Amino acid sequence: MEKKARYNVAVVGATGAVGQKIVETLEKRDFPVGELRLLASARSVGQELKFKGQTYKVEEARPEAFEGMDFALFSAGGSVSERLAPEAVERGAVVIDNTSAFRMVPEVPLIVPEVNPHMISQHRGIIANPNCSTIQMVVALKPLYDAYGIDRIIVSTYQAVSGAGQKGIDDLMSQTKAIVGGEQPTPSYLPVGSLPKKHQQAFNVIPQIDTFTDNGFTKEEMKMVNETRKIFGDQEIQVTPTAVRVPVVFGHSESVYIETKRPFDLEEVRGLLEQATGVTVVDNLDEQEYPMPATTADTLDVYVGRIRRDLFHPRGLNLWVVSDNVLKGAAWNAVQIAEYMVKTR
Amino acid sequence: MEKKARYNVAVVGATGAVGQKIVETLEKRDFPVGELRLLASARSVGQELKFKGQTYKVEEARPEAFEGMDFALFSAGGSVSERLAPEAVERGAVVIDNTSAFRMVPEVPLIVPEVNPHMISQHRGIIANPNCSTIQMVVALKPLYDAYGIDRIIVSTYQAVSGAGQKGIDDLMSQTKAIVGGEQPTPSYLPVGSLPKKHQQAFNVIPQIDTFTDNGFTKEEMKMVNETRKIFGDQEIQVTPTAVRVPVVFGHSESVYIETKRPFDLEEVRGLLEQATGVTVVDNLDEQEYPMPATTADTLDVYVGRIRRDLFHPRGLNLWVVSDNVLKGAAWNAVQIAEYMVKTR
Repeated sequence: MEKKARYNVAVVGATGAVGQKIVETLEKRDFPVGELRLLASARSVGQELKFKGQTYKVEEARPEAFEGMDFALFSAGGSVSERLAPEAVERGAVVIDNTSAFRMVPEVPLIVPEVNPHMISQHRGIIANPNCSTIQMVVALKPLYDAYGIDRIIVSTYQAVSGAGQKGIDDLMSQTKAIVGGEQPTPSYLPVGSLPKKHQQAFNVIPQIDTFTDNGFTKEEMKMVNETRKIFGDQEIQVTPTAVRVPVVFGHSESVYIETKRPFDLEEVRGLLEQATGVTVVDNLDEQEYPMPATTADTLDVYVGRIRRDLFHPRGLNLWVVSDNVLKGAAWNAVQIAEYMVKTR
Repeated sequence: MEKKARYNVAVVGATGAVGQKIVETLEKRDFPVGELRLLASARSVGQELKFKGQTYKVEEARPEAFEGMDFALFSAGGSVSERLAPEAVERGAVVIDNTSAFRMVPEVPLIVPEVNPHMISQHRGIIANPNCSTIQMVVALKPLYDAYGIDRIIVSTYQAVSGAGQKGIDDLMSQTKAIVGGEQPTPSYLPVGSLPKKHQQAFNVIPQIDTFTDNGFTKEEMKMVNETRKIFGDQEIQVTPTAVRVPVVFGHSESVYIETKRPFDLEEVRGLLEQATGVTVVDNLDEQEYPMPATTADTLDVYVGRIRRDLFHPRGLNLWVVSDNVLKGAAWNAVQIAEYMVKTR
């Protein structure tokens, strides 16, 4: 990418939960935006969004819309990315894709800037943004991976409904209002929009995110397995995930157990995490301080607490990891990749 | 205990969340109750509760109140049990204690009837009921422990606010109403009633249940470690717990990973769980069926689903375990112990 003062940016899926956060983040980070194009499906055309005080009309996401764009940030679902990302690349844009469409394609870099920024330069037009639950986990584990190596990860997630988009948020809120008002809730979307069965999410936890695969793990869980290996460039690392949706709007939490390859010192672990880029340690038990979705939502970092040595395994370490799934888990990671490309030119 | 047609029963802490469920469960199970005494602290005296259509006045829990009682079921907090359980024993009652007061006393049996009923007969007046999060886990693991042995357990919990009693429920509901109504929530009780700091629980998860110990684990987590060992009578079993409170009213969920001592066959595991007493398997992925608090609350069993072989460890097994924490986790387990004693005379 050629060095410029300003870059033309297209946001595909601009009216969605992640798309809106991308536009907000571009503004908050003062990304050097030249022309901004907000793209969405035909039925959202004409909607208006604000960027730096100016009103933008949403246009239809069509191949021609990418003419003259430097970046195209996609978050409109896998099928839209599959259809339009190659069109954007053909027209000279670098695609940063939030969907799972290209993540496991070998020649597409899967990037978390705190972990594998060196892979960005290998792109052939498309750069993939990992799944939200993977991103926050690998950011927290990166300094430990570098210092001690990691043999295995056993992780249980507590994922927010915003991971299922605006419809997930609306479903939880309308169910909660019904129950608080003494009525029966009417689940409309969760756990999986595309599947017929709907479950209560208000005052309930659902051990299903995305559809099931043949091995009994969900696609969400398999993303954590496969994406973690690709991001670390390590096909030996073993990941055992259980992905669960909880009645939280913004912020995924993860209970993470790891076994390192080499012995660690607990105070050193704490120091490595405190110094790590993109990580904030919140771990003061005397003051009942640890990361929680309610206190970390709407911020960019990955928060780590409950740092404790396992009681039995000599190389076992337990962590509690929280991050805003729509920001670091999606919008911010995508904008951060673009920032990285612009700054390192 | 002498064989009788009817048994006199005192319920201590009868007005609390668990106490009320004990009274309900005695009725639903048609326990052969002779005289029933509902006891509580002085400030609850005079309140009325129903049992089998009759109204009972709550009396003050004093030593004399245990005269003539066969069973005394305690759930009024550890300090009340410490003070009054010996008084009840002295007056000839068998105490079944829901608090943590006596659980780790070597000569006090710690009983889950599906797991170690043979230990009941060793009591010297007091029988302890384990912690809710331990009970449902060991019920699910018992058939696997017997068949294959268990080396280690790594468990992350999703615990309901009713585990903190009626005040925990009230706190979550009032916070939720505030947020749904567009107001700021005012946390009043959670995460730990006795500690000064209060956290938002509505639309949030809190990685603290009970106070912290020096090793960085909470007391709740250490209960899962120590009680599991005592119940299985196995000081070698390794438990790595992370206990988390979620915005659910009734029903604890647990993401459980185990490593067995000997190899297992997955279909055999399923069969063993299906045949196990007190266990219901809900595990039909094609139909999106798995246990959830919303569908299992107010029932007696421990529900197991998401049964799947680990992707990497040859003796690794993943389970999702849900049960009503106030019933099997407390009231029902206590009444069940009494039933067992009455039936096996």
